[in-house]
Amino acid sequence: MERYGRVTKEIYDELLALLGRGGVVMNDAEALDNYAWDQAGRIWGRMPEAVVKPADSAQVAAVMKIASRERIPVTPRGAGSGLNGGAVPLAGGIVLSLERMNRILEIDPINRVAVVEPGVVTNDLCRAVAEHGFLYAGYPMSTETSFIGGNFATNAGGGKVIRYGNTRRHVLGVEAVLPNGEIIELGGRFRKDTWGYSLLSLLAGSEGTLAVVTKLIVNLEPAPGKTVNLLACYPTLEELVESVAKVIGSGRRIISCEFMDRNLVKYTTEYLGCSLPEQERSEGYLLIQIEGDTEAQLEDGYETVGKICLECGAFEVFVAESRTDSAAMWSVRQNGLEGMRARDPHACASGDLMVPLSAVPEMIRRIKKISEEWKVEIGIISHIGDGNIHPIPLKPEGMTPERWAVYAEEFFAVLIGEAIALGGVGSGEHGVGHVKQKILTESKSAAELEVLRGVKRAFDPLGIMNPGKMFSPLD
Amino acid sequence: MERYGRVTKEIYDELLALLGRGGVVMNDAEALDNYAWDQAGRIWGRMPEAVVKPADSAQVAAVMKIASRERIPVTPRGAGSGLNGGAVPLAGGIVLSLERMNRILEIDPINRVAVVEPGVVTNDLCRAVAEHGFLYAGYPMSTETSFIGGNFATNAGGGKVIRYGNTRRHVLGVEAVLPNGEIIELGGRFRKDTWGYSLLSLLAGSEGTLAVVTKLIVNLEPAPGKTVNLLACYPTLEELVESVAKVIGSGRRIISCEFMDRNLVKYTTEYLGCSLPEQERSEGYLLIQIEGDTEAQLEDGYETVGKICLECGAFEVFVAESRTDSAAMWSVRQNGLEGMRARDPHACASGDLMVPLSAVPEMIRRIKKISEEWKVEIGIISHIGDGNIHPIPLKPEGMTPERWAVYAEEFFAVLIGEAIALGGVGSGEHGVGHVKQKILTESKSAAELEVLRGVKRAFDPLGIMNPGKMFSPLD
Repeated sequence: MERYGRVTKEIYDELLALLGRGGVVMNDAEALDNYAWDQAGRIWGRMPEAVVKPADSAQVAAVMKIASRERIPVTPRGAGSGLNGGAVPLAGGIVLSLERMNRILEIDPINRVAVVEPGVVTNDLCRAVAEHGFLYAGYPMSTETSFIGGNFATNAGGGKVIRYGNTRRHVLGVEAVLPNGEIIELGGRFRKDTWGYSLLSLLAGSEGTLAVVTKLIVNLEPAPGKTVNLLACYPTLEELVESVAKVIGSGRRIISCEFMDRNLVKYTTEYLGCSLPEQERSEGYLLIQIEGDTEAQLEDGYETVGKICLECGAFEVFVAESRTDSAAMWSVRQNGLEGMRARDPHACASGDLMVPLSAVPEMIRRIKKISEEWKVEIGIISHIGDGNIHPIPLKPEGMTPERWAVYAEEFFAVLIGEAIALGGVGSGEHGVGHVKQKILTESKSAAELEVLRGVKRAFDPLGIMNPGKMFSPLD
Repeated sequence: MERYGRVTKEIYDELLALLGRGGVVMNDAEALDNYAWDQAGRIWGRMPEAVVKPADSAQVAAVMKIASRERIPVTPRGAGSGLNGGAVPLAGGIVLSLERMNRILEIDPINRVAVVEPGVVTNDLCRAVAEHGFLYAGYPMSTETSFIGGNFATNAGGGKVIRYGNTRRHVLGVEAVLPNGEIIELGGRFRKDTWGYSLLSLLAGSEGTLAVVTKLIVNLEPAPGKTVNLLACYPTLEELVESVAKVIGSGRRIISCEFMDRNLVKYTTEYLGCSLPEQERSEGYLLIQIEGDTEAQLEDGYETVGKICLECGAFEVFVAESRTDSAAMWSVRQNGLEGMRARDPHACASGDLMVPLSAVPEMIRRIKKISEEWKVEIGIISHIGDGNIHPIPLKPEGMTPERWAVYAEEFFAVLIGEAIALGGVGSGEHGVGHVKQKILTESKSAAELEVLRGVKRAFDPLGIMNPGKMFSPLD
C-alpha cells in the first residue's frame, strides 16, 4: 500500500461539492504553483496536487475528514511568508490555504482581546486594534504580509520580543481542527488556565503539523507610551555587543534593541538610496527604542542609554528628533533582507540562531570566522537584545543556485552547532520547516525525539499533517 | 497481573543502596504520613509505600529506572502546599520528594536568569534575587512555603499575574527526568525558541504526570519601581466589579487588583485581631497596587484609579501612606484562607474559578445564588483583575467532615459548570490533582481527551507518573 492517498478525480469532485468553484484549485499548474513554495525560495518548493480554500471551520473539518479517510497529506498555509519551507506541501497532497478566513470577528475592549480568523494579515490586525487604543504586541517584522495564523504556527518573534514576548504569549485561545476533523477549543478570553495540559502552548510553534487553527483569541496590550529611537554606531563589534547587556540591564523601558552590521547597512542603504551616519567607519549599529510615559522619562531614557553606548565605545549616538528620523532608522532595519537580496537575489534568509545574551559576542566572532572559512560574504541583522541573530549569507560568485541552496544550509548547520554549543538553539522565531528538518532532528537527543514523536502521534496518528517537517523526515 | 508493582523488600534495599539512609523512608507510618496528603486536607490523602529523597538528577533518574522496570507508581512532591491533592500518592507506590534538591545554583545577571533546583522555597528565591536588584515575578501567594518546582508543576499564578503573567512565562528552561529515567533538557538562558515543539510549555502545569523536573532556569525581572496600595470599599458587589474593568483599562501600571468580600474580611480581621475601614457597611473591598517610576507618576496613578473607584460607587478609597498601612491591607488579603479556616477548620480552599473579566459580575451573582441554594456560607477572595475567583465555603453545621469533603466538591462542580458556561475554565492556578479529576474529565470533549491521553502516553507509556490525576482516573 502507498504511504499516502492521492487526490483522485472522485475526491476532487467531493471537494468541489463541499467548497464550490472558488474553494478548490486542481489541474492548473500556474495557479497551483503559487502554493508550491514559500520565502525559503522556489528551490525548496514542491507542487501540491490540489489547493483548498475553506471559508469556515466547518469546511476545514470536512476537508480533514476526507483527508483522514483517504490518508491524503494536508499542508496548512498562511501567507507563505515563512523562511524554512513550513508551508511547502512536501508530500504533495492538499494545500489548505487559510486566505479566505480573513475576518477580524471582534474587538473586545473589556477582556482586552481580539477574536480573529487565521488569514488576517497581522498588520491589518495591528491597525484595527490601534483604532481602539490597543497594541497587538506579538507581531513579527513581516507584518505587512504575514498572517496571524502563520505567526502562531511559527511562534513568531520580531523586534519587540524583549518587551512583550513572542506570539505564544499573545494567543490566549484557539479553535483548532484536528487531523480527524474534530474541532476543539482551547483557552479563552482570559490569561490563566491550569485546567489540563496546555495544548494551546504546544500548538504555538507546531508549524501546522498537529492541527489547523481556525480561530484565534489574541491578547491586546494598552497602546504604548511615547517612544524615542536611538542609533549608536561603533568602530568594532566587540564594543557594540558589550553595550547590549548594559542597555538591557539599565532599568529603562527598552522596547527594541536591534543590531545591523556594516555589510547589511551598506547593501540596504544602497538599495534604499539613503545613508546612515558614520557609515565609512562603523562596523555596526545598534537601533534602540525606549518607552516612557513623559518627556522627562524619555529624556532620562535616551540620556542613560546613550551614555552607556558612548562609554562602551560608540563613536556617536543619534537620537531621532522627528518621526522622519525614526522612520529612516527603522527603514534600514526593516528592509535588511530586501537590501541583501538586492545585492544578491540568492541571499539566504533562513539563519535564525539563538544564544544566551552573554554568548552573543562569542557567537558573532564564530559567525565571522566560519564565514571566512566557508568563503561566504555575510550581512548580519539581529534582535540582539534577545540573543537572536540572523546571519544572511550571499551566494559565492560562480556557484550554481542549486549547489548554493545546499551549501547555505550546510553553512547554517555548522553555525547552529556552534549556537547549541554556546547554550542556544537553532531557531528563535523562524521555525524549522523542512529546510532545517535534518539539522533539528540531529540536534535532539533520542529521548526527546521519542517524546516529540509521541506528541505528534497523539494529534495525528495517520501522519497526514504537513509531513516531512520539523523532526519528521518524509517517509 | 497487577496494574502496578509494589515496593518489595528487595526494591527497598536497592533504593537504600542508591540513596543512603537519609534518602529513603519505609515502614515508618509516622514519617510516611507526612507525605500522604497535601493542603487539600487529610481526607484526600493516601499513604505511600515508600518516600525517596534524591539529592540530584542522577539519583532521580536511577529511581525512575527502577520504578519503570517494576511498574511502581511515582508521585513527585514539592512542599505539599497544593490544594487539590496533586502530590498525593493515589496509587500508593513511591513519593519522590524534591526537598533535598533545594539549592539556588546560580544567579546570572547578564542573562537575567537564576538556575535553581526544584526544592527551593519560592520566597527564598525571591529574597536571593532581590539582593541582586531583581524580581522573580512568577510567584504565588503561598511563597512562604511552596517550592519553585511545585509552582511550575501547577503553573502557579498569584497576586501579580495581571502585570507579569503566571509561572509558565517565567520558566525559560528545565532539566527533566522522563519516567524511563532518561534526562532531557528543554529551553535555556534565552526567551525565544522555535526549535521543535515546546515541551517546556507543556510541562508547565502538568502536575508531575509527565516527568520529574530537576532543575529550572527562571526569568528575572528588573526590581519594580515605586508602588502604592489602594483600598476601596463598596456598598455593593455590583459597584465593585464595575470598577475592575475600568481600573484595568485605565492605562496605569496596575500590578495587583484583588477582591475580598464581606465574610472573608470579617473572619480574617477577627483572626488577625485588626480591622479594615468601613467594615460595617462594606460588601466588598478592592485592593489595588499601582507602579510608577516617580512620585508624580504614583500620584497620577492613585488619583486616576481612586477617582474611577469613587465614580463607580465606592464609599471611600484609602491610599496607604506608609509601609505599615500597606502591610495591614495586604495582611488581610494574604491571610484570607487562614481567616476562613480560623472560623471553620473545614473551610474548603480548592475553589479556583476562571472567567473572562466581563463575566465576573455574573459569575459572582451565580456564586452567591448557588451558595444560598446549597445552604453553604462562603467567603470570596479573588484575583479579580484576572477573572480568577476563589470562593471559600464553610462546612454547614452538623455535617460530617467526610460528607463535607464530597459535598464541597459537588458544590464546586456546579460552580465550575457555570464558569465554563460563561466562557471560563475550572482552574486558573491551583490545578486539578485528583480532587477535581472527575470534573475536569467530564468538562473536556472526547476529541480533546483523546489528544491529552496521547500526550500522556508520549511521556509515560507505562502510566506510572502520578496516576489518577488530572484527566486520568485511577485504573
